[in-house]
Amino acid sequence: MTAALRAAVVGTGYWGPNLARNLRSSADWELAAICDLNLDRARKVAGRDAGVRVVQQLDDVLADDSIDAVVVATPAGTHADIAMQVLESGRHALVEKPLASSYAEAAKLVQRAEQLGLVLMCDHTYCYTPAVQKIAQLVADGELGDIQFVDSMRLNLGIVQQDVDVMWDLAPHDLSILDVVLPPEAHWTGVAAHGADPIGAGHACVAYLTLPLASGAIAHTHVNWLSPTKIRTMVIGGTRRTLVFDDLNPQQRLSIYDRGVDLSTAGDSAEQTWAARVSYRLGDMVAPALPEREALGAVVTEFAAAIREGRPPRTDGRSGLRVLEVLEAATRSLATGGALLPVGGDK
Amino acid sequence: MTAALRAAVVGTGYWGPNLARNLRSSADWELAAICDLNLDRARKVAGRDAGVRVVQQLDDVLADDSIDAVVVATPAGTHADIAMQVLESGRHALVEKPLASSYAEAAKLVQRAEQLGLVLMCDHTYCYTPAVQKIAQLVADGELGDIQFVDSMRLNLGIVQQDVDVMWDLAPHDLSILDVVLPPEAHWTGVAAHGADPIGAGHACVAYLTLPLASGAIAHTHVNWLSPTKIRTMVIGGTRRTLVFDDLNPQQRLSIYDRGVDLSTAGDSAEQTWAARVSYRLGDMVAPALPEREALGAVVTEFAAAIREGRPPRTDGRSGLRVLEVLEAATRSLATGGALLPVGGDK
Amino acid sequence: MTAALRAAVVGTGYWGPNLARNLRSSADWELAAICDLNLDRARKVAGRDAGVRVVQQLDDVLADDSIDAVVVATPAGTHADIAMQVLESGRHALVEKPLASSYAEAAKLVQRAEQLGLVLMCDHTYCYTPAVQKIAQLVADGELGDIQFVDSMRLNLGIVQQDVDVMWDLAPHDLSILDVVLPPEAHWTGVAAHGADPIGAGHACVAYLTLPLASGAIAHTHVNWLSPTKIRTMVIGGTRRTLVFDDLNPQQRLSIYDRGVDLSTAGDSAEQTWAARVSYRLGDMVAPALPEREALGAVVTEFAAAIREGRPPRTDGRSGLRVLEVLEAATRSLATGGALLPVGGDK
Amino acid sequence: MTAALRAAVVGTGYWGPNLARNLRSSADWELAAICDLNLDRARKVAGRDAGVRVVQQLDDVLADDSIDAVVVATPAGTHADIAMQVLESGRHALVEKPLASSYAEAAKLVQRAEQLGLVLMCDHTYCYTPAVQKIAQLVADGELGDIQFVDSMRLNLGIVQQDVDVMWDLAPHDLSILDVVLPPEAHWTGVAAHGADPIGAGHACVAYLTLPLASGAIAHTHVNWLSPTKIRTMVIGGTRRTLVFDDLNPQQRLSIYDRGVDLSTAGDSAEQTWAARVSYRLGDMVAPALPEREALGAVVTEFAAAIREGRPPRTDGRSGLRVLEVLEAATRSLATGGALLPVGGDK
Repeated sequence: MTAALRAAVVGTGYWGPNLARNLRSSADWELAAICDLNLDRARKVAGRDAGVRVVQQLDDVLADDSIDAVVVATPAGTHADIAMQVLESGRHALVEKPLASSYAEAAKLVQRAEQLGLVLMCDHTYCYTPAVQKIAQLVADGELGDIQFVDSMRLNLGIVQQDVDVMWDLAPHDLSILDVVLPPEAHWTGVAAHGADPIGAGHACVAYLTLPLASGAIAHTHVNWLSPTKIRTMVIGGTRRTLVFDDLNPQQRLSIYDRGVDLSTAGDSAEQTWAARVSYRLGDMVAPALPEREALGAVVTEFAAAIREGRPPRTDGRSGLRVLEVLEAATRSLATGGALLPVGGDK
Repeated sequence: MTAALRAAVVGTGYWGPNLARNLRSSADWELAAICDLNLDRARKVAGRDAGVRVVQQLDDVLADDSIDAVVVATPAGTHADIAMQVLESGRHALVEKPLASSYAEAAKLVQRAEQLGLVLMCDHTYCYTPAVQKIAQLVADGELGDIQFVDSMRLNLGIVQQDVDVMWDLAPHDLSILDVVLPPEAHWTGVAAHGADPIGAGHACVAYLTLPLASGAIAHTHVNWLSPTKIRTMVIGGTRRTLVFDDLNPQQRLSIYDRGVDLSTAGDSAEQTWAARVSYRLGDMVAPALPEREALGAVVTEFAAAIREGRPPRTDGRSGLRVLEVLEAATRSLATGGALLPVGGDK
Repeated sequence: MTAALRAAVVGTGYWGPNLARNLRSSADWELAAICDLNLDRARKVAGRDAGVRVVQQLDDVLADDSIDAVVVATPAGTHADIAMQVLESGRHALVEKPLASSYAEAAKLVQRAEQLGLVLMCDHTYCYTPAVQKIAQLVADGELGDIQFVDSMRLNLGIVQQDVDVMWDLAPHDLSILDVVLPPEAHWTGVAAHGADPIGAGHACVAYLTLPLASGAIAHTHVNWLSPTKIRTMVIGGTRRTLVFDDLNPQQRLSIYDRGVDLSTAGDSAEQTWAARVSYRLGDMVAPALPEREALGAVVTEFAAAIREGRPPRTDGRSGLRVLEVLEAATRSLATGGALLPVGGDK
Repeated sequence: MTAALRAAVVGTGYWGPNLARNLRSSADWELAAICDLNLDRARKVAGRDAGVRVVQQLDDVLADDSIDAVVVATPAGTHADIAMQVLESGRHALVEKPLASSYAEAAKLVQRAEQLGLVLMCDHTYCYTPAVQKIAQLVADGELGDIQFVDSMRLNLGIVQQDVDVMWDLAPHDLSILDVVLPPEAHWTGVAAHGADPIGAGHACVAYLTLPLASGAIAHTHVNWLSPTKIRTMVIGGTRRTLVFDDLNPQQRLSIYDRGVDLSTAGDSAEQTWAARVSYRLGDMVAPALPEREALGAVVTEFAAAIREGRPPRTDGRSGLRVLEVLEAATRSLATGGALLPVGGDK
């Protein structure tokens, strides 16, 4: 076993302590330092472990030569600035989502990390859940066939944010999942957004994103802060099978249906042959067993592996960039009544 | 009790026999004649009842002075022509949906019926189910408050049609329900449609319709022939309560939640007061008992009442027209990548 | 193809017309006669088909030498008498459940049919549904392993009967399913019944039947007329897999779980090894596709096949007898506070 | 506000830390000491709080005159001995369930606490969940009317215990809930138990308890370690309404149905009047909103209130005794094939 990598966690709000806990319990990592302007909170996260330094300033972290990597869990508005300092100091960076507040800032981070040969990873935690990892594998293995449509829903009586609309609050989850699940040749090529602000929050509280895919298929996401019932589903229809992911059903998160419509292309299209051309598969459904484990554990494992193997992590800076590109385009689309705007061209 | 009205049913395919059966068992109606080019089928629907004439030609129906009204249940392409003959003969007409194949044809029917003072009714059967009637009443009574959003879904492994796309096949149900439920001042003002044809059917098999409402709210419909699971739901969010209609749950079709977000408008919008402005209602849910009865029975009752009272029926020709207007605009929107097109302006 | 067998249906109440319809549409059968004291009702069931005689008396049926078999769908109290006349006349008999009002009467029928070499079949319709046939096959093929427990529930706001208690009304369904599903060597050996009559109906409206199985396993049935929600489930736990049958979920009637507890018998039982001995399987779930077809069609097919092949049908008179034996013992058990009474000894 | 009471927690296994955390965050309590033979574990639970003593021996706790009450969270086999020492020292005791390993031991505790005028409380945590407190209130307020039947289920692929059977492991939850919900005059009067050990665990892994109630109603519990699916439901049927408690449905834990059967007693029982006597209520369903809060918080609040008010707590020693009485009788019943044995006579 190689020696553990040494990490500092910057920011001890809601998510930082979870990242610290997972670093601490990982064989790949040694938790070296906790940094927060609020020293009391930092001390509490560090606990009694004498090996963990508690510091107030990022500079104190970066001055410590023993540190290999920095985990950035500060407020979103500070991500770009802190991550850039981390990279400039020669450290690898794992950044809580979103990677930055804007596409432009995030693009600079990605470019700089590539220039410096450092790992820049985006903490798209959902992508590391057993369910999403299984979905990605099923798609990659061709078990679903070519993707025909993706429909996802993320609704609940959610916390209405003051600073961001419901798309920026919830859609990153769906988009980051799509980003790891869709094969590159079937990725999104545009986005159209519709929404409403029926409660007067100043921005959309209900929104629909439509994303045409390069293959001619379609992806669609419904995000909603106003629903009385909680829904978190994603349906992925394929030429071979269709998968239903219900994240709120712990007893049956994934259901894979051998059900679908097949349209034979052979023969002419005269009316009498339509019925002969269309056939319906009505096969079994399988709900695969999934391991129970914390997604964040897999996040820190992947971060270490990418550093050691000198390769981009599964959710690298570019994945964060792709998500931000869609969100920015969706914002413009929403402002113009739902125009379809191109995204993904530079991939 | 007034004397029963006398009706003829034209067309004995799938829906005609159901209409005949309901006319026969209604105290408001006397089933006078069955008309079909296929006389054997017409005879079977007429049964042993000597009082029901069986004829092959529409002219034979219209020549019978004893007949007050004609129910048109022929293929959609013939609705406009047959209904116009019925009206011109001075009879009231109940027409299976869609009212006609195009908005223009339907508009002529509506105009002619109004000129002649005849009842032209569209058989939007769903609007007469106990569930939808309850929903319409709850909205009308203000029980839901102002409508904030409507989200409906109609998915199954459906019969892929050759002649019409999934919007024309399934969305009329959702649109006709919306049409009776939405108050006139909060009706739709436009439509944008997105869709995909991933199986090569020649037209959309998955589609999303977004309808901005006059009130600033939004309605959205997802129609889908490719889903492995069957879903028929409609969520109507209001300022007072939110209703979930699950048509496939016979034990709990309607759920009315006293849950929602309230945003006080008083005071300034400084950051520290945001939390004070937003409040969440987390009240009870009520699933009202609904009677079990056939919607078509209420259809023929309403048809008779409208004739007797000389008033438009609940789903009059204009409602059929409004649905067709949306479908035609949605078809154009789909062809242009989802542009938002105005509808409903002439209401 | 051999010539069709000719059948008469006696009794045209609720179930008789369904049997007549299925006989008529079966290639194995020719519907020869309909018999009912109420001739009008009989005529209605016979329809316009000139080939179907309509008669008022059983004797008229039995006097017709062309008739091969008689289907008895009269009130339960008359089954034994009519079926005996049918057998004595040399005809095969298909009798609606229950086979007779008492075990003693039913036993006479079984004995006489065997003496005369005639087919006596009990119409346990549930056993011919695609779901139950699949369950029986899975058990027979060893897919579930040895059965460990069976738990079934049949609850709804049911029609409170005046003449029979909830056990006699509902449990025959569960017992007849169990009878075809359980392997003979793992059949029931006793029954204990508990119940209550909280509404003062004069007999149990809620009841629980416990049936120890020969293998050491246990079966248990809950039947209930007072439940506000409708439930129809059966769980069959096996050493290899566990099956859940939810008859009210048309989208997923059967779920087969590769989940269970395995207790290794090797080694001693010292405390430190208990954890090592117990292991939990947490595998996939499969919901097999089931054909959509009417169970009664399979009933009349099986009746014809048994006659032609000179073999007992799947649900022969003895199966009806075994169900009656349990019901009679359950009635005695209920009267004595739930004593466990032996049944099944003579099988 | 009166001064906080001072408590010691004895035992820091699975449950003790939860109790300590709730005592610490309660305004009614001051956490004074943590006691465990394993001092490291005790220190960890005590945390950095200098005010909490960490001791290894119960005597050290009891020697501290400042301590008012002791919370016993040690292994079940030691409850009786430790609780008796606590009482003899003049302290109030809150004991994790079960109160003791046997009825006899528990009875001594109850007797001694009453002699000494001390509070002896059993930590039947479930009884303090918002759902169960709501149920108890609904029953007490007469909202359900007289109870007609109770059916509860507690199934999952559970941890197969070595020392106790499934009844002793799971049924205490259902019995303690029943104990607080059932009015004294409608309490249980007997128990019959059926079960099976199909995996060879040495004791029942599947069991059914039937409890006749004094009112003529019936309660029934199904406990099961072998089910592939997790179920935790309780149905309480009443003359006015029926309640369904589904503990695994956080969005709709309680459903109160205004549905049921009413049997009028007026008039004679001639057949033609049966239909007239029976009527079915088919009213609305209400799912009341429930607060989200931790049950253990309410446990420690009730413990303090009982001490201050000199009254028995909601789940006093006698409730623990009643549960143990049923379990012991159920064990005897199981051994004798399900005989109905009297319980509850001395209440």
